[in-house]
Amino acid sequence: MKPKRSAFALLAIAFASFTTTQAQDPLPSWNDTAPKKAIIAFVEKVTKPGSTDFVPVPDRIAVFDNDGTLWAEQPMYFQFAFVFDRVKALASEHPEWKTQEPFASVLKGDVKGALASGEKGVIEMMTATHTGMTTEEFSKTVTDWISTAKHPKTGRLYTDMVYQPMLELLRYLRANGFKTFIVSGGGIEFMRPWAEKTYGIPPEQVVGSSGKLKFEMRGGKPVLVKLPEVPLVDDKEGKPVGIQMHIGRRPIAAFGNSDGDLQMLQWTAAGSGPRFCLIVHHTDAEREWAYTRRGTKPSPKAGRS
Amino acid sequence: MKPKRSAFALLAIAFASFTTTQAQDPLPSWNDTAPKKAIIAFVEKVTKPGSTDFVPVPDRIAVFDNDGTLWAEQPMYFQFAFVFDRVKALASEHPEWKTQEPFASVLKGDVKGALASGEKGVIEMMTATHTGMTTEEFSKTVTDWISTAKHPKTGRLYTDMVYQPMLELLRYLRANGFKTFIVSGGGIEFMRPWAEKTYGIPPEQVVGSSGKLKFEMRGGKPVLVKLPEVPLVDDKEGKPVGIQMHIGRRPIAAFGNSDGDLQMLQWTAAGSGPRFCLIVHHTDAEREWAYTRRGTKPSPKAGRS
Repeated sequence: MKPKRSAFALLAIAFASFTTTQAQDPLPSWNDTAPKKAIIAFVEKVTKPGSTDFVPVPDRIAVFDNDGTLWAEQPMYFQFAFVFDRVKALASEHPEWKTQEPFASVLKGDVKGALASGEKGVIEMMTATHTGMTTEEFSKTVTDWISTAKHPKTGRLYTDMVYQPMLELLRYLRANGFKTFIVSGGGIEFMRPWAEKTYGIPPEQVVGSSGKLKFEMRGGKPVLVKLPEVPLVDDKEGKPVGIQMHIGRRPIAAFGNSDGDLQMLQWTAAGSGPRFCLIVHHTDAEREWAYTRRGTKPSPKAGRS
Repeated sequence: MKPKRSAFALLAIAFASFTTTQAQDPLPSWNDTAPKKAIIAFVEKVTKPGSTDFVPVPDRIAVFDNDGTLWAEQPMYFQFAFVFDRVKALASEHPEWKTQEPFASVLKGDVKGALASGEKGVIEMMTATHTGMTTEEFSKTVTDWISTAKHPKTGRLYTDMVYQPMLELLRYLRANGFKTFIVSGGGIEFMRPWAEKTYGIPPEQVVGSSGKLKFEMRGGKPVLVKLPEVPLVDDKEGKPVGIQMHIGRRPIAAFGNSDGDLQMLQWTAAGSGPRFCLIVHHTDAEREWAYTRRGTKPSPKAGRS
């Protein structure tokens, strides 16, 4: 990701008389290279009435991965930071965690040790911090955390660690009749409380990994309790499944950044008519992190980066 | 359901000069009784800026049961008619069905015998007719069926067996910033192919019972295969679960007609702020079917029926 924010700011000061022209650029933070041109050409052709590539508004479905595509994902998935903070917050109710891995490592502040427990450890921590409560209780916990927790490197709120070029892209697509969806491996109930404010994407357009829910009456009040089973892991092969479950029609545009997005891109690309797929490469060590894998992916130069 | 269509048609001819006034009535097929007044009063208060009951547009979520609420459900759920027709269509590939219940009864045209097999038999028939194919193949089968199959009593297409007053209600709510969702025990993939054309409800706003899907490559093409497992039975306790899974926020209005809708109505009613819940009673044996249960529900006179 290389948003040209600073360049744009300079330009705005130096050529104030060109404000109108600048305002007409729907993607001002994007470099004027092939990816930006391709996006605009795609949007123009699918929205042009009478064009053979015209796509009616209801079919203008665009799906976005979240981690590494809409917001950063380094040094680790932000949801893991939430999990670790929840483990610390709940530790007083669990004296056994002091000696029990991966909890013991989390409580000592040893992230690497905690993640060394692998998938099994992560599932244990997810179960301990994401299940047993009602959906409303969980949503409140997420809202409280996301409005105060800070990224360890930048010291910013996590919702400020979103990519400006992608915010512009979301707005540009919506202004052209697209419905924008998140399709993420992250937890659906973890993303929904802040996705609308941060991305303009309402809860019903957030697709993510989903735990089983149970309806019950508690004190005469109906609640939904989060259970440990996870019927949808919305990653890799799970992404087209999540798309079909929640959206029910094939997207015409998909945006991702990793192997976890491959099947979503394949599913999108295999539809008939015009299609647009984009992979975000992370090559800017100065303003973000440079970790795009070489060799197995197209050169970073080829994509917007 | 008692749409006053004929009364309205007469009125329109007799008092043509009142066309403008008529056009202003958002629910012309509804009798001018308490339910209609209550709906209009609710919509007016939640859409009035500055009102203490004002609800912002994104929170104006309305959910509708389908069978018996938006379209008829007699003499049996229309999806069962689809199942029976599919059993007949597939019979040549299954010679064993000639002697195997419930298939044998279906092939003899004995609906009662087929349904006598109970839940077990229904599941067997659903599995045989709704799984194993890709989502696209299934969608095409539904589309072909729904555009040709006729209701046994009226001889009409099933999509013509929808309730005119409810179509008006859907349009009225949408014109006032509501997002309208189906929340039905019926199959999500059975309803989506025709819900948009029939009700103006797009696939992503259809919530229903959902079978598991599997992503795979077939001949180099990605497909989603329908599996026999059913992770969400979107009925009774399943309805609030389906609402949370797909919508992620609590509706402010809910419309149902049966015990299967109770929990959806409870979940809707238990939210804070203004709420609207309506139960459709079926009391018109002349133009529909009269089968509303007496005693355990409010008198049909109290509701719009």
